[in-house]
Formats: sequence, structure tokens, C-alpha cells
Amino acid sequence: MPISEAVLSELRAILGDRLSTGESDRELHGASETFHRAPPPDAVAFPLNTAEVSRVLKVCNDNGVPVIGWGAGTSLEGHALAIHGGLVIDLMRMDRVLEVRAEDMLAVVQPGVTREALNTELRATGLMFPVDPGANASIGGMAATRASGTTAVRYGTMRQNILALEVVLADGRVIRTGTRAAKSSAGYDLTALIVGSEGTLGIITELTLRLHGQPEDVAAAVCAFPSLTEAVTCVAQTMQLGIPMARIEFMDPMAMRAINLDMGSAYPEEPHLMIEFNGSPDAVRANAEAFGEIAAEHGGKGFQWASTLEERNRLWAARHNSYWATLKLRPGATGVVTDICVPMSELPGAVAAAAADMEAAGLLGDIVGHVGDGNFHTLMLVEPGNAGEIATAKRIARRMADRAIAVGGTISGEHGIGVGKRDLMLDQHGEACAVMSAIKRALDPNNIMNPGKLLPDFN
Amino acid sequence: MPISEAVLSELRAILGDRLSTGESDRELHGASETFHRAPPPDAVAFPLNTAEVSRVLKVCNDNGVPVIGWGAGTSLEGHALAIHGGLVIDLMRMDRVLEVRAEDMLAVVQPGVTREALNTELRATGLMFPVDPGANASIGGMAATRASGTTAVRYGTMRQNILALEVVLADGRVIRTGTRAAKSSAGYDLTALIVGSEGTLGIITELTLRLHGQPEDVAAAVCAFPSLTEAVTCVAQTMQLGIPMARIEFMDPMAMRAINLDMGSAYPEEPHLMIEFNGSPDAVRANAEAFGEIAAEHGGKGFQWASTLEERNRLWAARHNSYWATLKLRPGATGVVTDICVPMSELPGAVAAAAADMEAAGLLGDIVGHVGDGNFHTLMLVEPGNAGEIATAKRIARRMADRAIAVGGTISGEHGIGVGKRDLMLDQHGEACAVMSAIKRALDPNNIMNPGKLLPDFN
Repeated sequence: MPISEAVLSELRAILGDRLSTGESDRELHGASETFHRAPPPDAVAFPLNTAEVSRVLKVCNDNGVPVIGWGAGTSLEGHALAIHGGLVIDLMRMDRVLEVRAEDMLAVVQPGVTREALNTELRATGLMFPVDPGANASIGGMAATRASGTTAVRYGTMRQNILALEVVLADGRVIRTGTRAAKSSAGYDLTALIVGSEGTLGIITELTLRLHGQPEDVAAAVCAFPSLTEAVTCVAQTMQLGIPMARIEFMDPMAMRAINLDMGSAYPEEPHLMIEFNGSPDAVRANAEAFGEIAAEHGGKGFQWASTLEERNRLWAARHNSYWATLKLRPGATGVVTDICVPMSELPGAVAAAAADMEAAGLLGDIVGHVGDGNFHTLMLVEPGNAGEIATAKRIARRMADRAIAVGGTISGEHGIGVGKRDLMLDQHGEACAVMSAIKRALDPNNIMNPGKLLPDFN
Repeated sequence: MPISEAVLSELRAILGDRLSTGESDRELHGASETFHRAPPPDAVAFPLNTAEVSRVLKVCNDNGVPVIGWGAGTSLEGHALAIHGGLVIDLMRMDRVLEVRAEDMLAVVQPGVTREALNTELRATGLMFPVDPGANASIGGMAATRASGTTAVRYGTMRQNILALEVVLADGRVIRTGTRAAKSSAGYDLTALIVGSEGTLGIITELTLRLHGQPEDVAAAVCAFPSLTEAVTCVAQTMQLGIPMARIEFMDPMAMRAINLDMGSAYPEEPHLMIEFNGSPDAVRANAEAFGEIAAEHGGKGFQWASTLEERNRLWAARHNSYWATLKLRPGATGVVTDICVPMSELPGAVAAAAADMEAAGLLGDIVGHVGDGNFHTLMLVEPGNAGEIATAKRIARRMADRAIAVGGTISGEHGIGVGKRDLMLDQHGEACAVMSAIKRALDPNNIMNPGKLLPDFN
């Protein structure tokens, strides 16, 4: 049911011309990076502050209008699609860094700040916000999906790096969760409950983030391995020996081909690891040497160290562009991205099984992974609208998820559930899904907050 | 209302003679380490497995019988007191380490394993479970209260070190939260919701724990400072420089007097820091030297390094016995313990204000703290039953909590809320308390799970 004219007037009274029903705004806020598709929302709101978000939610709750939060639009699981119509709330105009307390190593930001903008603003303080999902996502969106990425092996995910939140609930109430202290045991951990709730429990309007010192020294390298098993085993051994890595990424031969085509580089089309160490110069040197020895035992070769900032930026740009580079392998294709995470000992087997499935199906695609966490992705290239290819890719994704569950892992390491993985939630969580639903009903009885996402069918 | 004979029969049918209504069992399970007091429970259950816990909870839920979980009994906020009568479930016979997966750096344990028993069992694996609240608490109780202690500055609290849980809900349903993977973004973080919920949402019957490598080298030291401000400022600077400490503890002059009397040592009665570094021998040496320079700038002197295991054990035993040692300063006294945690920049002021309040009130007591987290405790010695002294101590505790809230900190760094801090929850969390209550009602509609704890009056 579209939003009624009466409700639109109420919303317009709050937002003025920052409520849009124009086709281009609606199309822009109905798009998705991947194959997930839905009609555009009925309207788009551009609030400037928490009070406006609160008033908008109250109107929507009173009238049963679905509300979908929107950040940088980089979700891979269709999180922000208006699958039941309703109002998209674009939070990107709430993009201020409100406070930086260097002595307490924390920053208070609005949800529309992107991670790159935040780190630019922090540069002179000697501090940084390390969570790095690759895309220049908004901090609010990263919190809502419990994002992580290349640096989680060292700094943790959004879960570990958020101290406190301001959240607007479905009925417009504004709550604060957490504190500025390093730890707390004062009541239920609502911060952790909201982080990863994908806009289904509330809209995040302010975040207090844990900052980290910019490392004194950094060294990054790329090296090739004779097989994916050797590469992944090398990582597992490095972890078990407690050698601290700041980043450790796996790329399969197809990913290297995509990078070569995209960047004009000439890496051998073999399994590769990209690794980064940081810390004091002595520690960086010692850790790099120790890793080099382990890598050599597993046939690692062709080490290329990038020690200048420019070289490192080029290296990580190659990794971060890998998604787009891979899409270019098949012009016009769209991506089906998977995202499982397993215990370290299960990683070589899980990667090998996924590679074998893709090869058996004859589907073009590649595998990259944040292998220090046991997390990896396949990107499978399918023709938009080609139901057969999409079905094949989904079947492979399903098999990967089933395997992850079977070995004690998770169906989503960092991309979240959105619409893409709802049908796996019961397999993953069983009866715990009923607990999630009970919490959802308790906080959003009218089911207006991003309905049809994350949970299995609302019951 | 006491448990009826009919319900006791139902429980006895499940547990046999592992249901006790004997006075000594009830008294033992109605005790508290601190001044909090309540009549003993009506009965005590000693289940051996999850199925028994589930059946017992179903009976209690059907009959409105309060259920209180019991571990090692070391809570400081009266968490396990049967303030509304009912059944205490003693989980200490579920004390097995079910699985250790060294290659995945995890262990699966039952809730009644104590941290010392777990680490004894892990010794040969090269791994350890680092969370150290001082007392030899049960792992289940540590999870339920989101405990931390001396090593949180390096390894985090229970929140960061639990991967997955098995939980029995009020109605007897058994759920599993989390996975064995290092991270997950698959749905609401129920693990984090249960950790710190103090038995008000369910009973933890199994825990999957994150393990860490036993450090190659360890060095610990104690040193004196001319004032508490100099000591605490030294810690803050060490933190800001990113020098990794494994432990960093503050003790005030009175705490040192108590230690001297208890251990027969001869430390000067001045503010002290106890510090520990771990890692590779090179890193330990470098970090210790860097800390020594900062300490010297703040008047730190009389460094005594403990490098053998025996010396270190003696040092940390002194710290861990500090609570009991302080109680001996006033024979027959009981303790009022506070537990605030503030942002680092606010720590010197908060410690100084607490010390001034205690001195102005003429109350005997001391201050110790996990100062790397911004967390500290006062232990005030009061005569049991002396209403005036208890009121004075509570007034000081209240002022500390108010100050913590005012500077963005928390009313409880690690001891939890229990009965002791319920009246502070609204001041700390405001409207978020209503959200906690809504979650509580959704998961425990009959309010049988540790009623009267953690939340302000159930509404």
C-alpha cells in the first residue's frame, strides 16, 4: 500500500522539501549493488538531526509505514531495498564528526560520515578508525550490518569498535546505549544488540567509536603460492604462532587475473596472499621475517614488499577494487557474492570445496577472503535476468552456507542477512530465531522497521 | 510464597536427591560475599546436564517459581540472593571441559568450570583463557556478570572472549547463540545479550570460549608513586603511546598496608602500580623500558621486577588477596565495594574525588583499580548491622556512581548490577531501561528468571 497523501503531508510538515517523492530520488534509493531487486520506495527523507528522525518515525509508526535506513548504498545483501514499499531515510546529510577526544581515544560521529571522511578528519590526531570493509561505506551502515573487512584480524569488527550509540526506536523514542568507558557491566548490552540489527530495531543517529593509534611503521607485501591450500595453511600457522598481522587477504588466480586486467599489473595468475604488518619498526621487521619463513615452507614466492605509502595504497586499492575488477571479466554481468566464515582449521577445506563447486558448474567467478578471520567470499558472475545462471549461483551459495553451518561456522561473516540470506537463518540459529523475533516484536510491534529483512518470516 | 509440596515433588522426580531443601544447603546458597542479605532460597537444585536444567525451568515457569543461577558464589552485588524466594540452581556439578580445539583456539566448557580449573586443563596445550576477575569464579558466573579484571586491558572482558553459548530459557527451551567462527554478522548478537544479563534472561549451560596463546615471556613489577594522580597519569600516558600492557593495577597506600599485614611484605605505604608485560622477550624488554621512562617522569621509584614464575605468582596473589587482606584491617567488618569505570582522561579526578570522600567521612577503606580500563574500586569497611556506617558508605558509593555518569562513564565496570545497583540503572540508562524491560518481558513473561535483579522495578 503506497504512503497516503495525508501521511506525506505530515512528513512534509517535518522535513519540507527534504521529503522527496521524485522519481530520480526514489530510483537512486531503490538500487542495489548486486542482483537483488525491488521496486523503489514511495518516498525518500533527508533528515538533518535526531529530532527529525524521531518525528518521522513516530508518524510512520502511527500509520504503519515501513521505514528503511539508507547510508552509502554499498550493501551486498539488499538490506536497504524497500521490498514492502514505504519511506527510505537517507542519513547521509547527518555527516558530522561531532567530537574527537584524543586522550580518551574516541570519536562521536553522525551515521552519515563515511569511513574515509572520518579518517581524513582524524589524520592530524595520530589516531584512526581501523574498520575497513573496502567500500567507502557510511559508519552508520557499517554499524547496522556489523561490518568488518581487511583489518578485523587485528582490530576486530564494528562490534568491538563501538562504545555507545544513540538510536531512534520505531515509536520515535530516542535511547542511548553504552558509555564512554572502555568496558561496562551495567545491564543488557543494547549496543551489541543494535550493531548488526540491520535497521530492524531502530535507526542509529549517533555513534561513539573507539579509535586506535596510527601505527609507527607499516609494511605490506604480496606473494604467490602453489595452491590455495598452501596459502591458507600458511595463514593458519601464522595465526597459531601468534604473529600479529594487521591484514591478511587471500586472492585466487581468477581474482589476480581481474586485478591484472584492471590495474595493468602482471602478477602471476596463481593463489596470492596480501599481508600487512604494523607497529614499531623492530616489531614490523621481526614479524615480516617470521611470516616469510612460514610462507617459504609452503612454497610462497615472489614476495613484493611495498614500504612507501604510495606503493601500499596501490596494493590495497587493487584488493579493494577487486569486486569491480572481477565484474569487468564479464561485461554486463552482475555479481552473486557469498560470505561465509568458518573456524581456521576448516578454512582450507571450505575454500577448496567452493572452488570445486564453481568449477563444476562452469560459472565464472573468483574467491577472495579475509583469511585471518576464516572469512572468504566467492563472487560469481551472472547475466542479469538469466534465471538459470542465478539459480546455479544461488545453489552454490547455499552449499557453501550449509557447509559453514556443518563445521561450526556462520552463513555471514560480515555482509549481513538483508533479503539475501533470510532463508538460511533457521538453519543457522534454529530456536534462537524465535528469540530474535520476540525481541523484534517487543521493540517494533507494528513491524515498520526494515520489514522483511534479517529475520525469517515475521511470526 | 514458598515452593509448594506439589512443585517440589515434580522437581524431585527430575533430580532425585539432587534437589535439596536441607537447611545447610539453603544457607550456603543464600550467602553473599558482601553486606547484601536475604533469606535463603526454598530449595537448591544440582542438575548434571542441560536437559535437567530445561525440565526444571519448565516446571518453575509453569508454577511461577523464581529461579536463581549459582556458580562459585563470588558475586559482590548480591546477584544470587533469593530475594523473592524460589529455587537456586547450583551449576557447579556441570564442570566439564567438553572440548579443546587448539588449532581453532577455542574451548567448549560447562558453566561450573572455574577459571583456575580451566587453565590447569589447558596448560599443556600452550593456550590459556585470560579473563581474570581475581576470585576463582565459575566461567558461567563470569559470563552472566560480564566479568573482567586484571587482564582486560590486554585481552578484553568476557564479552570479547565468548564465541557461543547454549542457554536454557525461562520456559525450558534450549537455544544456541553464536558460532565457532571468529566473527559473524548473521542476525542479532544474542551471545552479547546473554553475557551480562545476570541470569535474568536464561541459564547458561555451555560456553564456547576464545583461547589465547600462553605468552613466551612475562615480566611483572611493582613500583611506588608520590601521589595517586602521578600514578594514574603515568598509566594514561602509557596507554596513549600504545605500549601494550598485559595488566596494570593501581593500589592506594591503605591497600599496600593491608597487603603488608597480610603477606608480611614491607612495601612503603604509598600509591603503587603493579604492571605486567608479555610477549616475545624482545618486546617485553622494550615495553618495560619504555614504561620505566614514563614512570620515572612521574616520580615512580623502587621498581621491583618479578621475573620468575614464583615471584610473579606471589605478586599477583598479593593483588588478588587484597579484598580479604583489607577486610582484616577491621576485624569483623564487612565490605561495601564500588566499581565505577570512566574514560581515561577522567580517571585521576574520579579516583581523587573518591579518596577525598572516604577521608571526609572518616570511613576506613582502600582503593584498587584496573586502571588501564579506567576502572577502579573502593572497598569500605563497615560494621555488619551498623546502619549509620552502611548508609555513609552507600552515600559515597552513590556519589562515585553519579560522578561516573556525569563524565560519560559507567556505574559498573565489571561487578554487574545485582541488587546493589538497581536504583542507579535509570540514572545510567534512562529510556533504554524501558527497552531492557521490554526484552526481559519478551523472554521471561512470568518473571521467574532471577527476579528483582539488574532491572529497575519490573513494569
